[in-house]
Amino acid sequence: MIAVEDFRARIHAGLSGSLPGRLTWAQRFSAAMILLSVGFAIAITEPDIAARVGRWISPIELAFATWFAAEYLLRLWSVGEDPRYAGLQGRVRYAVTPMALLDLLSIAPFFAGWGSQSFVIRLLRLFRLLALSRLVRYSMAMRLVLDSIYSRRHELLFSISLAGSVILISAAALYSVEAELQPDAFGSIPRALWWSVCTLTTVGYGDVVPHTAWGKVFAGLTAMSGIGLIAMPTGILAGAFSEAFAAKRRNTE
Amino acid sequence: MIAVEDFRARIHAGLSGSLPGRLTWAQRFSAAMILLSVGFAIAITEPDIAARVGRWISPIELAFATWFAAEYLLRLWSVGEDPRYAGLQGRVRYAVTPMALLDLLSIAPFFAGWGSQSFVIRLLRLFRLLALSRLVRYSMAMRLVLDSIYSRRHELLFSISLAGSVILISAAALYSVEAELQPDAFGSIPRALWWSVCTLTTVGYGDVVPHTAWGKVFAGLTAMSGIGLIAMPTGILAGAFSEAFAAKRRNTE
Amino acid sequence: MIAVEDFRARIHAGLSGSLPGRLTWAQRFSAAMILLSVGFAIAITEPDIAARVGRWISPIELAFATWFAAEYLLRLWSVGEDPRYAGLQGRVRYAVTPMALLDLLSIAPFFAGWGSQSFVIRLLRLFRLLALSRLVRYSMAMRLVLDSIYSRRHELLFSISLAGSVILISAAALYSVEAELQPDAFGSIPRALWWSVCTLTTVGYGDVVPHTAWGKVFAGLTAMSGIGLIAMPTGILAGAFSEAFAAKRRNTE
Amino acid sequence: MIAVEDFRARIHAGLSGSLPGRLTWAQRFSAAMILLSVGFAIAITEPDIAARVGRWISPIELAFATWFAAEYLLRLWSVGEDPRYAGLQGRVRYAVTPMALLDLLSIAPFFAGWGSQSFVIRLLRLFRLLALSRLVRYSMAMRLVLDSIYSRRHELLFSISLAGSVILISAAALYSVEAELQPDAFGSIPRALWWSVCTLTTVGYGDVVPHTAWGKVFAGLTAMSGIGLIAMPTGILAGAFSEAFAAKRRNTE
Repeated sequence: MIAVEDFRARIHAGLSGSLPGRLTWAQRFSAAMILLSVGFAIAITEPDIAARVGRWISPIELAFATWFAAEYLLRLWSVGEDPRYAGLQGRVRYAVTPMALLDLLSIAPFFAGWGSQSFVIRLLRLFRLLALSRLVRYSMAMRLVLDSIYSRRHELLFSISLAGSVILISAAALYSVEAELQPDAFGSIPRALWWSVCTLTTVGYGDVVPHTAWGKVFAGLTAMSGIGLIAMPTGILAGAFSEAFAAKRRNTE
Repeated sequence: MIAVEDFRARIHAGLSGSLPGRLTWAQRFSAAMILLSVGFAIAITEPDIAARVGRWISPIELAFATWFAAEYLLRLWSVGEDPRYAGLQGRVRYAVTPMALLDLLSIAPFFAGWGSQSFVIRLLRLFRLLALSRLVRYSMAMRLVLDSIYSRRHELLFSISLAGSVILISAAALYSVEAELQPDAFGSIPRALWWSVCTLTTVGYGDVVPHTAWGKVFAGLTAMSGIGLIAMPTGILAGAFSEAFAAKRRNTE
Repeated sequence: MIAVEDFRARIHAGLSGSLPGRLTWAQRFSAAMILLSVGFAIAITEPDIAARVGRWISPIELAFATWFAAEYLLRLWSVGEDPRYAGLQGRVRYAVTPMALLDLLSIAPFFAGWGSQSFVIRLLRLFRLLALSRLVRYSMAMRLVLDSIYSRRHELLFSISLAGSVILISAAALYSVEAELQPDAFGSIPRALWWSVCTLTTVGYGDVVPHTAWGKVFAGLTAMSGIGLIAMPTGILAGAFSEAFAAKRRNTE
Repeated sequence: MIAVEDFRARIHAGLSGSLPGRLTWAQRFSAAMILLSVGFAIAITEPDIAARVGRWISPIELAFATWFAAEYLLRLWSVGEDPRYAGLQGRVRYAVTPMALLDLLSIAPFFAGWGSQSFVIRLLRLFRLLALSRLVRYSMAMRLVLDSIYSRRHELLFSISLAGSVILISAAALYSVEAELQPDAFGSIPRALWWSVCTLTTVGYGDVVPHTAWGKVFAGLTAMSGIGLIAMPTGILAGAFSEAFAAKRRNTE
């Protein structure tokens, strides 16, 4: 009995980690499995690769699914070590935490789609990518970054709404100037929005480009505003990180 | 009499907000209406959507216009609560504030264009987008961001004028090198400016690209200066925000 | 005699400014003339515009040249107010300062090219754009920005040399992978450098794009390094500006 | 005997530098030789240039190789001045330091490929580019920059993994939406990754562009996330550099 409890404690320590920011070997293995399974899921969408590995796809998928299901059950069993999740009620409480639901969602599609290969099932399998978000749970720095962003959410929202306004205004300007010459690309504001977003983010595919002189003037102004609208959130985040790093240093001193 | 004044005070509190940075329910509803009306105005410029919703366009537009007119009149009436705008004279003073004029300008085009659907009217309707700027009035962080930008206006102006010089110089360089090979794209400095702005902002549509070796050398130098000219305002804003955040923290401590 | 000296002092105060960072009316007029003359020089390179304004070009150019020559001579005369440039020797010392030479260089081409309209003369006229750099002399913030950049020149040089190395390495990689498939675009490292610079600066014209799988892998890595190589100088400048703004605040307190 | 030791000390001082951050004339010459040899190696990959300089290529290559071999041997001999690398054993210890191995690797290919001109040898010669990394050894600021980046490696890793997740998710989204319409560009997630990386880094070649309405919506969201994912590492680095510059100032005060 003591042996089982000791084993459960070891499993819990392995899966949930004892020291913050430090991965156990079990966690490292788990992370590697997630990355491998995501890489495999991505690779087999390519027909050339799928045709070559052919008959190995099903066994490999089964192996991954079995591992993730086993890890999920082990985690559910061993989480009882944590006083918050002790007992059957505690397990239910754990099972409805967002992270546990995400774990379940990344496993379920495989067993649900077992045997069938419809497009919807393949799409559901893409949810497996969400399992990647489990990796960040391992990271400490994440908290500092996310807290800094959260502390400046109002400033960031302002810069986002400003960017949104510029996107709308430049789309409207190009629509009014280029609509007659290029109805497919600028025939309506929703159509012009595609160009507007591509320009303001400085992506600039070049599939849609203004042809009139005024269109080019507005496009140039939009592109230059783009620099400002990239600079603003970057500057806000830089200020937030500066403060967060300084605060952390003061605390550790 | 007391009931009416109490009602006016409530309306004023609802429309103008009592606590800074905190939206009242009336303000949230107003913001939602603005976003909806802008979204609707954008959507119906798309012929496919306009054809589908057809006969609903007029009633929906009337509903939006009525709401905004009612809000404007309510605001004008209730603003008397504010000692600065009390009495008829105060109302006139309020009506000529930039924000009130903007409100009026976002309502008037509808009633002016009632019945007609000419292109000019549709263009005027785009001014409704300006109503979006009312949203930012709700935001507190806006002040911190705008003050930071304003406090560094000279540094930003310097980096903008430096960018402007580089744009002109690279346009002149490409004009002198590529004009003969590509007269349409580089046949004059105003024409070359289009390429120059697209390159320096790193948008890079690719509709106009240098073909000569020297043209490519100048283009490469322009693109690399572009990085510096993005980095400069971003760095200035980052410094300004760092200081503003630190000053705010010191004040609240 | 006193009247002339008083007049000279006024001219000197007007042209050279008495308070730092504050433009006199004479300086504002001068700046406007420079901007107008540059705008005019740019506009008349466009054949459509040149044909339309036709016979007005020569008189306008003469007017601008006369103004700049008059300003230059007035400055040379009135600079004697400054003890450093008093007397004939002082004037010569002033005339060989970089800014005075630049002024002269922006005036001379017109009188040199008087009557002829060859392409070389038109190219020389582009030097008039350099007159724009006089505008920045008016600015105070310029010093803070340039000092900040100078104080971090070693860090910036390191990030530039790192960027240069990545440009060379990615050009070499694409050359070795794509040379056979696209000899025009990747047939040598100098040719591949064009693609490399366009990608690393995130301009991305799209006139030259890798076609092989390995080429795309290297291109993706290059594009992602591009983000880092933009982030590095931006971060360095942000840090430098933060420090400069803080130092300035401490000094003024 | 004393003369030889004195000579060795001078060579050592010349090659390894006595003061940090200050290049000796020998080091400056060495850096110039590296840049020249790299420039030469790049230039002769261009067939036009190779054909023109023709018979000078071999002698020039031999001269560069001889110089670098001589420098390597001199360094190996004079490094004995450093107590850590004194004696034969010390020399071996020095020879296996990463920098010395890199030096050797940048010399060996030439002597190995002497006479033959196969493609593999030409590829090996590209390793000479790695010799450029020796330049950064001369720099002091490099340490500050690299230390700042290292001190924030966890935050940077978090932002990189976030960027990686967004790249995967947007590739999956475009694959599910555009695969049928554009099988070549979006027929599998690995194929869609090319588009995804080009968009998120805001390079935007435009060789692959979404055509469906949903594809454009996802692409717009990806492009806008791109701004955030550029802003995050930039902000983190800005914060790190701010702190590093402030710490350095405190230390020197």
